[in-house]
Amino acid sequence: MNIREETLKLHKENRGKLEIISKVEAKNDKDLALAYTPGVAEPCKEIHKNSDLVYEYTTKSHMIAVVTDGSAVLGLGNIGPYAALPVMEGKAVLFKEFGGVDAVPICLATQDVEEIIKTVVNISPAFGGINLEDISAPRCFEIERKLDEILDIPVFHDDQHGTAVVTLAALINALKIVEKELKEVTAVVNGAGAAGIAIAKFLIKAGIKDVIVCDRSGIIYEGREDEDFSKKEIAKISNKGRLKGLLKDALKGADVFIGVSAPNVLNKEMIKTMAKKPIVFALANPVPEIYPDEAKEAGAYVVGTGRSDFPNQINNVLAFPGIFRGALEVRATTINEEMKISAAYSIAQTILENELTPEYIIPKPFDKRVLKNVAIAVAKAAIETGVARVNLDLKEFENSFNK
Amino acid sequence: MNIREETLKLHKENRGKLEIISKVEAKNDKDLALAYTPGVAEPCKEIHKNSDLVYEYTTKSHMIAVVTDGSAVLGLGNIGPYAALPVMEGKAVLFKEFGGVDAVPICLATQDVEEIIKTVVNISPAFGGINLEDISAPRCFEIERKLDEILDIPVFHDDQHGTAVVTLAALINALKIVEKELKEVTAVVNGAGAAGIAIAKFLIKAGIKDVIVCDRSGIIYEGREDEDFSKKEIAKISNKGRLKGLLKDALKGADVFIGVSAPNVLNKEMIKTMAKKPIVFALANPVPEIYPDEAKEAGAYVVGTGRSDFPNQINNVLAFPGIFRGALEVRATTINEEMKISAAYSIAQTILENELTPEYIIPKPFDKRVLKNVAIAVAKAAIETGVARVNLDLKEFENSFNK
Repeated sequence: MNIREETLKLHKENRGKLEIISKVEAKNDKDLALAYTPGVAEPCKEIHKNSDLVYEYTTKSHMIAVVTDGSAVLGLGNIGPYAALPVMEGKAVLFKEFGGVDAVPICLATQDVEEIIKTVVNISPAFGGINLEDISAPRCFEIERKLDEILDIPVFHDDQHGTAVVTLAALINALKIVEKELKEVTAVVNGAGAAGIAIAKFLIKAGIKDVIVCDRSGIIYEGREDEDFSKKEIAKISNKGRLKGLLKDALKGADVFIGVSAPNVLNKEMIKTMAKKPIVFALANPVPEIYPDEAKEAGAYVVGTGRSDFPNQINNVLAFPGIFRGALEVRATTINEEMKISAAYSIAQTILENELTPEYIIPKPFDKRVLKNVAIAVAKAAIETGVARVNLDLKEFENSFNK
Repeated sequence: MNIREETLKLHKENRGKLEIISKVEAKNDKDLALAYTPGVAEPCKEIHKNSDLVYEYTTKSHMIAVVTDGSAVLGLGNIGPYAALPVMEGKAVLFKEFGGVDAVPICLATQDVEEIIKTVVNISPAFGGINLEDISAPRCFEIERKLDEILDIPVFHDDQHGTAVVTLAALINALKIVEKELKEVTAVVNGAGAAGIAIAKFLIKAGIKDVIVCDRSGIIYEGREDEDFSKKEIAKISNKGRLKGLLKDALKGADVFIGVSAPNVLNKEMIKTMAKKPIVFALANPVPEIYPDEAKEAGAYVVGTGRSDFPNQINNVLAFPGIFRGALEVRATTINEEMKISAAYSIAQTILENELTPEYIIPKPFDKRVLKNVAIAVAKAAIETGVARVNLDLKEFENSFNK
């Protein structure tokens, strides 16, 4: 059986991938009197008196919504809310299996920005966080920004920030191998969608020397004719040398290539023009911007892709489960830059210095240490930056992972 | 420990009552390739080609939303979406434990009718049905009606129809005991909120001779000064004799009292004026309109309440799990009157004629036969009335309950 048949069989036989179960018994009148009427009125009354107690007595403390409008699903494009559902269920599976976070797929019947915002605000009370997923750029930027402003729970667009966090994690370790400092290097990001823009902004926040972003028309620079607000914004803070031209022009002398674009857009000749010991992250999926063997032949010193069948898989699953787990644990009101940067360093530091090799710069998805490290780092950063609503005992939180 | 302490402990220790689990493995790269990328693209593509396949490959086939705006929660009133959450979780527990239906609590941050409708429509794609819960009358009538018009999945306000279905079921059996026919009797419904209006309408649909509805101001009749549309509407189809006056006036000669109102509003003297062998369903909770022993002393022949500690508990849990289970199984587009009436008769017929006594007119909540009977009756009625989207093999469906 090939993968197509196998995955269709898996989805069909299970009728989807998620199930909602009760954590309490409902076997007799006594059980019902506690879980439902009349007993349930007691937590209701407590929460009515003090709404913070919703975190004590309900699933809000560990349940999030995975929200999409189906406008940019995987590489499939705008396939709508129904066809997007298997991906959202898959994401919920990952949230649970990798993070112990309960996640509900919400697929929206609208692609209007204002209506999406209003709908998510309206359904937010039962959820401890909102993970936005597969919403097309540049709409995703405004939706996330406004929701984060309005809501007192974390809002996180994984296609942007999950990718950015794991990319920075990989870069931190790759730079150790090539013996360069983040503040000395220039990275070229190819692709100016949700992931590309987010990676560029995040590397700048993290202290990189410079980033040059390219889209299909070439290098983005201040003053270029762009209708897209997100491109105008990135132009202002990137490309300090006001370089113009194509991807190949951007790459001359650059230290790092990060592709979140399309198959085969990078070639050996371009890599050869980069600075010494170039780092190449070719993240287009399933066909990368360049295959690792070719990149290495051209002199790439450290290579990463988005695929599990090559070394150094730059996979969001290293970030989003732990980020939400940590944020939920301290009832964070948002997921700020400090929390994301802490997440990136905690992923990188999961690999001990003596374990690091050019083929092993990023932990494997099934490395159990990652969740613990990320969740604790994020919770700690939330407390330190004042966005936590409970002052968690971090030692106790750490111990909870060792059970 | 008293019930208050015990229920708060139960809710706190479990951090709410629900958990979302994965039905598929996520233990290695192969698992992820099937449940998530790249394999998940296959069911996405299939659904994109034919949206009906969302029922084959996703949880939509068995997952519903339990939606409230927190405006009329239990007897607690308008306590808002946060304080309503424990009740919605409890409802989801019942859906799962009694019906095998997966239910997600959705607590809305708005109480505006139009915004509620829009929000529910927007989140509907991932759900196979919508159970409205604890939304105040008369807003609940418009919300349900419009959602049912717009959506192609069942919309069911349990406070209305669940109560109406179980009340009719109890009445069918009570009438057998007092040897009267539905078409010959007059019922007085006290209370004109969601439940009272729905019970009255439903009894009329089911073929009762007449219903008289009373609210705090007394008997509702055509031409009374009512601003509430739902009361105007019920006035047109009930109270054929255009009776005016108070509850006590309505009860003279009536065969059935159904209270969905307030504690202690019915007294012995009123019961004594009813027709012979009166039936009294005093459903106010926890304190009924009259206690069973008093009602019996006054001559009530069959008495039911909403409480589990008296005989004949008229409990919605007998209806909603099976109604949704049956409707989901045939992918019904709505839950129509025929399906609800079939549900009521199937609940009533769960008790064999030779088992019937004045103390046992309605099955116990934990009677396993109920789910099967209701689900099959509802599926069958959906097929017969043309609102089913799959022509289910009912024999096979029946066998699935015997496993």
